[in-house]
Amino acid sequence: MSLLQALSPRAVAILGASDSPIKAGGRPIDYMRRHGYAGRIFPINPNRSEVQGLPAYASLRALPEVPDAVVISLAGEDVAAAIDDCVAVGAKAAVIYSSGFAELGDAGRAQQADLLARARRGGLRLFGPNCQGVANFASGAILNFSTMINESPPGDGPVAIVSQSGAGAAILYGGLRRAGIGVRYMVSTGNEADICAAEAVRAVVADERIRLVVLYVETLRQSAYLAEGARLARERGVTILAVKAGRTSAGQATASSHTGALAAEDALADAFLRQHGIPRLADFRELVDYAPLFLSQPAARGARVVSISNSGATCVLAADAAEEFGLAVEQFDAATLAGLKQALPSYVTARNPIDMTTALLGKPETFGNTLRALSGSGAADLVHVGFPIGGEGYDFADFAAQASRFAQDSGMPIAVSVNQDWVAQAFQAQGVPTFWSERAAMRGLALLAEQAGAAAQPPAISAPTAAPSATLDEPSSLARLQVAGLPVMRHAVATSEEQVRAVFDTLPAPLVAKGVSIDLAHKSEHGLVRLNLREAEQAVQAFRDFAATLRGLGAQDGGLLLGAQHKADFELALGAHIDPEFGVAVMIGQGGVLVEVLKDVQFLVAPFGRAQALAAIHRLAIAPAFDAVRGMPAVALEPLADMMVRLGDWMLAQAGQVQSVDANPVLVARGAQPPVIVDAVVAVAQGDAA
Amino acid sequence: MSLLQALSPRAVAILGASDSPIKAGGRPIDYMRRHGYAGRIFPINPNRSEVQGLPAYASLRALPEVPDAVVISLAGEDVAAAIDDCVAVGAKAAVIYSSGFAELGDAGRAQQADLLARARRGGLRLFGPNCQGVANFASGAILNFSTMINESPPGDGPVAIVSQSGAGAAILYGGLRRAGIGVRYMVSTGNEADICAAEAVRAVVADERIRLVVLYVETLRQSAYLAEGARLARERGVTILAVKAGRTSAGQATASSHTGALAAEDALADAFLRQHGIPRLADFRELVDYAPLFLSQPAARGARVVSISNSGATCVLAADAAEEFGLAVEQFDAATLAGLKQALPSYVTARNPIDMTTALLGKPETFGNTLRALSGSGAADLVHVGFPIGGEGYDFADFAAQASRFAQDSGMPIAVSVNQDWVAQAFQAQGVPTFWSERAAMRGLALLAEQAGAAAQPPAISAPTAAPSATLDEPSSLARLQVAGLPVMRHAVATSEEQVRAVFDTLPAPLVAKGVSIDLAHKSEHGLVRLNLREAEQAVQAFRDFAATLRGLGAQDGGLLLGAQHKADFELALGAHIDPEFGVAVMIGQGGVLVEVLKDVQFLVAPFGRAQALAAIHRLAIAPAFDAVRGMPAVALEPLADMMVRLGDWMLAQAGQVQSVDANPVLVARGAQPPVIVDAVVAVAQGDAA
Repeated sequence: MSLLQALSPRAVAILGASDSPIKAGGRPIDYMRRHGYAGRIFPINPNRSEVQGLPAYASLRALPEVPDAVVISLAGEDVAAAIDDCVAVGAKAAVIYSSGFAELGDAGRAQQADLLARARRGGLRLFGPNCQGVANFASGAILNFSTMINESPPGDGPVAIVSQSGAGAAILYGGLRRAGIGVRYMVSTGNEADICAAEAVRAVVADERIRLVVLYVETLRQSAYLAEGARLARERGVTILAVKAGRTSAGQATASSHTGALAAEDALADAFLRQHGIPRLADFRELVDYAPLFLSQPAARGARVVSISNSGATCVLAADAAEEFGLAVEQFDAATLAGLKQALPSYVTARNPIDMTTALLGKPETFGNTLRALSGSGAADLVHVGFPIGGEGYDFADFAAQASRFAQDSGMPIAVSVNQDWVAQAFQAQGVPTFWSERAAMRGLALLAEQAGAAAQPPAISAPTAAPSATLDEPSSLARLQVAGLPVMRHAVATSEEQVRAVFDTLPAPLVAKGVSIDLAHKSEHGLVRLNLREAEQAVQAFRDFAATLRGLGAQDGGLLLGAQHKADFELALGAHIDPEFGVAVMIGQGGVLVEVLKDVQFLVAPFGRAQALAAIHRLAIAPAFDAVRGMPAVALEPLADMMVRLGDWMLAQAGQVQSVDANPVLVARGAQPPVIVDAVVAVAQGDAA
Repeated sequence: MSLLQALSPRAVAILGASDSPIKAGGRPIDYMRRHGYAGRIFPINPNRSEVQGLPAYASLRALPEVPDAVVISLAGEDVAAAIDDCVAVGAKAAVIYSSGFAELGDAGRAQQADLLARARRGGLRLFGPNCQGVANFASGAILNFSTMINESPPGDGPVAIVSQSGAGAAILYGGLRRAGIGVRYMVSTGNEADICAAEAVRAVVADERIRLVVLYVETLRQSAYLAEGARLARERGVTILAVKAGRTSAGQATASSHTGALAAEDALADAFLRQHGIPRLADFRELVDYAPLFLSQPAARGARVVSISNSGATCVLAADAAEEFGLAVEQFDAATLAGLKQALPSYVTARNPIDMTTALLGKPETFGNTLRALSGSGAADLVHVGFPIGGEGYDFADFAAQASRFAQDSGMPIAVSVNQDWVAQAFQAQGVPTFWSERAAMRGLALLAEQAGAAAQPPAISAPTAAPSATLDEPSSLARLQVAGLPVMRHAVATSEEQVRAVFDTLPAPLVAKGVSIDLAHKSEHGLVRLNLREAEQAVQAFRDFAATLRGLGAQDGGLLLGAQHKADFELALGAHIDPEFGVAVMIGQGGVLVEVLKDVQFLVAPFGRAQALAAIHRLAIAPAFDAVRGMPAVALEPLADMMVRLGDWMLAQAGQVQSVDANPVLVARGAQPPVIVDAVVAVAQGDAA
């Protein structure tokens, strides 16, 4: 039975069924009866013969047929037995409202694991525990106790809600329904003993009626399901919008105390969502506010926006917002100018944003002519229209019809900003999305551009698993990276004075000398680094001094590493590790030893290609400094991007033998000199260090 | 006559008065008659004996009394004569709707200057031209043609609107009135030939009824008025909230084409507003949305926030938002914990944010007890309450009354986030500000903290004026900065080989040698810099080589500058210039030659103190790297801050003799070594270069 089928049960039993339609165990019965559920409803209550007018049963075993789904609205300590009953009768799915599990800590986690073990014996799937339930508003199978269903009556439609938080699901449901948007599924996954949000997304995306999934997670579990869901969504033209809470350290600390979730690596979740074309929004409000845009507008073709308004102030604010959100406000080429001059009266300047002043007063056709001039010439990918003030002389019904037709005909998304309800309503009546500020509209258009700009993500390669690891010393680490095809400083290791002299002239002076010891993480703090060596005897002296230092520290002596010094304009850090959730993550960052304080880092989940790597480099705050400046050449970024790609691919190919790589610094210079790794620590799976 | 009096005329004449109440020249008459204006209204229209039922006059000169204010609703070419008439009869203020002036370019600018010259002959003050007018909703003196006054009827109250944009004023008026907020003044200043937005702010702040001024500007002119207004506002506990459009290059380019304004230096406006305790908001929507918060809540005492919610998801999102906006989410000390344990049931964990789960269901007193436990212990400065979902069992009227009382009693601002209209209304009925997301509420609390955190700004010193300037060579520039008390690299200039040898040993090796020439801006690009000189003869060689290079370039030879080399962990840039609007601006930035591409710079308008300078340094993106890291000591920032203060004070004291300073790089090291300027270009007023 697929998860989608589990959301469409033909018969439902409710353990802990209440005669009161406002109690958790009574609400699903009330909801299903009032909202058209055509299947069988079996209240289970050993103390009553009837519940809300339906015959009640003493136990699951007493039912005349096997329920596909069972709601468990019982005290926490009674859930395990209920699961056993579900398994015994052959139910397919259980929806566990009950709390008192992983959210309480270790003991609760063990009990929760026990529930899952019991369920798996009979192939029973679990929602929850500690969840508000699920609902299918197409069939009326509402196995959910949210009061919001009373406040905003159901209406089937193209949206699915998936939320770890029950309150979150209800907030989204209420917000979407108040906005007149139809919702088909509302799935809250609670503690996720079995079914997690990612799996639920993959399930609902498969419903052909679904065009938009709004997702709330605090911890992204089993992300492979979400990757699969995102691929299917892309094929089907479905949008997934996500809020991943715990963006900040304060939020993560809070999330880890809520619903028993561990603070996940937020930066990785961010990279994962971006790579899968899932725009990440800030909060529930944004998910609701941007739903109409994604439901009504075509996919973006790029990030160039034209803004049109009857207010100069709106033009300025729109240009500000476009730049803030990374959209391009380009000026018009000759062909577009020629078209616009036909469309616009002489007193309107054909520059972007277009300040219409009074040109639309009494002349609604000017609006459509302007839009067509823009689409005809391919001058833009996105259109913002600002009508901050409407009044006599403005025919908004006409503008709205034209805007709607334009988006359909041209394939260019349009977003309108307004301040008056009646103006908003005129556009909404034609399915044109409106926002209460230029900024909000521009942010929406930028989200469309971001979604469209994501490359197709290759199917996940079987990810290596995180395992206990052992650190290699510097020469061994560099050797591994060299084998991996990464550019490493020319170097040699000498373990005797004779060797020092022998290798010295094989390397181009000046040289750097480093003491090798598996026992010391930070060589320079112990005086084990010397720069600018030009004579072999300087190196021999270093060999002697370092050996003495290592003896003094009681540290293992791995010899003297001699390396060619490289010129650097920038020190970067390149890293990779195996994340238990996302697999191989590659990091690029600014700063050598300062990488942790500067926090100017970007992550990618492997595998990824050169374009994604370049985009990640360009997202670094330091990136503008890589351009040509003051007569100095630019940094060639392709070799750096290729290092990232190779590192990710190699980590995958190593299948867990290599657990992490910390190449820091990576020296990067302007001009043709390729980047080079001059120090590295590689950690390998324990037992693989030899 | 003060500007405030000009906004309260006892008699008004309308040039271009129309019988139609929906034409620009008819609207003010209609508005004033319908909204209680008690003064005399004199329509001027030579073609009619009556306008809207009032006796019409052929000209201003035909009036039975002198009107305080005259509305000029005429074609642009007729305005000059109208101004002359106003002056002739002795009117005090004119409100010029007419367009066709500076917004059209140079010719229009000249005509606009002519209007001002004519007005000044008779002490006539001007609003506009190209403005939507002004309104005083206390007296009903509505000299304004906005249609929004029909859509949302006036209601006097504590808010004043000042906007360069007429549409902006109307958007703000409509938004505030729809939110039920009373508005006393609506001033749109248009092209600002005479009265600018800054002067209007200073005027309205003086009205004792005003508690909040919302300001929209694209170009901040005559900022000294705004500085004065901000000081008065601070004394009176009045808030000024500003939107300064043109934040970005795209926005600035757009602003410069709108209302004839030049693109102002946005970063300076930003610094000015921050220093004067004027929170800068993003758009009109924010001005409207945050008005109730600033009108109802006490001033913040700090930036520590406690969040309370009945939803765990809201707690996570609130913590995320708090960190995003720079608020501190601190955990509770023992005393607070003890108080909270009294207030909370055992199943609620007393950690910040406080996830109430079901503790408030049917127990509204728990809410007030929790709040009192927080205020009693001084555990926080700000309170966020999130009720994302309300339903049966939650008594929001009670919560609202408690929240309102708490803010009054404790002096701690409170902001509530909700999703349901009826929940919002319950709080609003008690004057408790509500927001549609946790983020919006947190942003509001952060704005309160920002406003309260601004130091009192000293009265503006008479600012030097920008003037044509001449650049000094490096030794002269360094000498000036040394006289100013700024730390400059130890150096000497030699103009003969003998002098080179003589001064070499007076400086600590290694030395840097630089060729001096007033003709060359970038010495290193011409090979005129040599480092690491340890022998006098190396310097002599540099002297010879540089002389030859300069001869070859045909550049003036100012000799050889020898300087002591300094150790640097960071290269910063320190600058100052005289801005025509804001006076002396001091800049601190990251990056030496990369300062322009990295754009990690902060500005302050002089005079300012050490605390403000330190705060500006801490706002740099590079700032976290100044802390102690990896066993390396921190950078001492006070000496750097003191350099900024001294530079600003010195520039002010120089009264325009020094026009700009570009000290770059300023070398900064970890530990005790003070910062040092190793290169500088000082520009002095022309004629002062000797």
